[in-house]
Amino acid sequence: MTEPKKRLVELGQELAKDIEKGKQPKLDVPVRALSNVQYNERTKTLELGKKSAERIFFNVGHVKKFVQTLEVAKVSKQLLDLGKHASLRDVFYMAKRTIPGSNINIVDEQTESDKAIEDLELITEFSREQLNINANKNGSVAGQVIIEDKGDAIDWSKLGSGGWSIPSNVEEIKFKKVSADYVIYMEKAAVWERLHEDKYWDKHKCIILTSQGQTTRGIRRLLQRLNQEHKLPVYVLCDFDAYGFYIYSVLKFGSINLAHISESQAIPSAKFLGITADDIEKYGLSKHLIKMKDVDIARLKQISEYDWFKNNKAWQRQFKLMKQYGAKAEIQALSARGITFISEKYLPEKIKAKDWLD
Amino acid sequence: MTEPKKRLVELGQELAKDIEKGKQPKLDVPVRALSNVQYNERTKTLELGKKSAERIFFNVGHVKKFVQTLEVAKVSKQLLDLGKHASLRDVFYMAKRTIPGSNINIVDEQTESDKAIEDLELITEFSREQLNINANKNGSVAGQVIIEDKGDAIDWSKLGSGGWSIPSNVEEIKFKKVSADYVIYMEKAAVWERLHEDKYWDKHKCIILTSQGQTTRGIRRLLQRLNQEHKLPVYVLCDFDAYGFYIYSVLKFGSINLAHISESQAIPSAKFLGITADDIEKYGLSKHLIKMKDVDIARLKQISEYDWFKNNKAWQRQFKLMKQYGAKAEIQALSARGITFISEKYLPEKIKAKDWLD
Repeated sequence: MTEPKKRLVELGQELAKDIEKGKQPKLDVPVRALSNVQYNERTKTLELGKKSAERIFFNVGHVKKFVQTLEVAKVSKQLLDLGKHASLRDVFYMAKRTIPGSNINIVDEQTESDKAIEDLELITEFSREQLNINANKNGSVAGQVIIEDKGDAIDWSKLGSGGWSIPSNVEEIKFKKVSADYVIYMEKAAVWERLHEDKYWDKHKCIILTSQGQTTRGIRRLLQRLNQEHKLPVYVLCDFDAYGFYIYSVLKFGSINLAHISESQAIPSAKFLGITADDIEKYGLSKHLIKMKDVDIARLKQISEYDWFKNNKAWQRQFKLMKQYGAKAEIQALSARGITFISEKYLPEKIKAKDWLD
Repeated sequence: MTEPKKRLVELGQELAKDIEKGKQPKLDVPVRALSNVQYNERTKTLELGKKSAERIFFNVGHVKKFVQTLEVAKVSKQLLDLGKHASLRDVFYMAKRTIPGSNINIVDEQTESDKAIEDLELITEFSREQLNINANKNGSVAGQVIIEDKGDAIDWSKLGSGGWSIPSNVEEIKFKKVSADYVIYMEKAAVWERLHEDKYWDKHKCIILTSQGQTTRGIRRLLQRLNQEHKLPVYVLCDFDAYGFYIYSVLKFGSINLAHISESQAIPSAKFLGITADDIEKYGLSKHLIKMKDVDIARLKQISEYDWFKNNKAWQRQFKLMKQYGAKAEIQALSARGITFISEKYLPEKIKAKDWLD
């Protein structure tokens, strides 16, 4: 029996024992709230504090969440038994059954099953992916890497213009050969296609990896595995804007919502290689600044006050300069200097000079 | 010289000749507006009518668009010369230069360069992709297919849990071996991961293909090439909602905005394999209906009045039933019947019975 399945069986047995002994069944669930999230100076990641709360079956205020948590545990156990994975949406539908003899559904909205799954992660200390529950897949990767996945040997350097499509769950991937000095993660698929067409990963012996929009858990975990298991530095190539800073912050330190899984997600050594205020002067991008909107200004303020940024002089300087500019700048503004400027000049120069933010 | 490059050079030469002869330089641009879009009953696709408008250099109202169109033509010619591709955002930055001796930029917003590129497609009769300008990449594919792309032989059946990541531009892909009876396109990556984990494409000799969210032009073109070059039926697996119907409509008939490229995008023989009103009864999904919002109702009304749906009895019946239900239903509701229900029962049964909408 795999470890996650064993833990789920134990959980059920503990509850059954309580019931047999006439005790009231309850779950002990660590509190997931900002009040219980802290930045650990030593590990340099966000982590959950020690506060936890009891969830009691014979309590009108607790019973719904208690049952929901057990229901998703049941679904997860079924999936593990079958060797199948389900999406969060699938789990919602699988858990949405009507309690016999009533007209009450166990869950009515996906947010309920999602929260129950997060609680289950906390209770079992296994990630959702280990419990065979996936989020959406997204993203592409290329580089001199050979992996094994589902019995296939996959060479990331021989996949034409498309690259390998990153699955939602990367737990079972085996790295067979990793011939790279670093990884560049970029937030934009178009920038990835730029570097891929220029064979940047081949010329500079690295791995290029992208999502489009939000960084999925699958991508974060894949980056972390390359970083931890293969000691590859991870460089984050983002726009000079609050959203780009946030993407970097989540990759490096973890996120407040998912502080309980920082350990399997955060990459404390990641560097910000994206556009900086200094790049705007150095690479002649001042014509291409985009005026900040109120929402950008508010987001910038929020980020600059994060525990992990507030004593970081280099970052505070960037935040201040952005405020002075009143403007942001995109990676793709580099294209104004020539379509291959990013591959031939910007990136090699910055990486050679270690011109990144930490 | 490739055909697209030849056409751009000719375009420049024609304008230069006009100037030498003392004629005023002008471009003839087909009108892209609903008034000039029609549904062709014979080809069963949306197409542009014959209306066109002159764009004259010595006309204060025309000059900006005239110059913008020539500027993106110049950028496209540069890309073709270099053998490089650029994203729409890149082209915006490349075209955003200040006219010497003025403080006027050729373009100030990406919408301007995007429109100029669409005009250039109309003028040259080459698609943006053939002019080396790409949109965003998105999507994954798996199946018994071997392609050649950028010198790599890529086997879509040997790519682990991820699949091949579809590039933004699929014009240069060569199909080496296609061993499939049909293609299923689904709007949700999670459904693709479901079918992929169940090896649906292997058991049923088909190709499975997904995006996440909007169907990109790269995906539409790839589906069309599989349909036209390999005579594979294309089945569209969507939710029972106005958005799902719209995805199907665009894939099959083309879109109003891109009516000028329906020829390289539309798949008139595509079938809707997604959830229907009848499936709700047949597969016991009535518990999983989601109440329509005002925006859903408005969207449904709009779609039901499309030229290509308004005389289609089978579709009008679905629209009417949806209105009666006042509710929509998702593909993933099938998971309530068991995680592999879609792979083992729903799809094989529907395909065998040809239970689709046309």
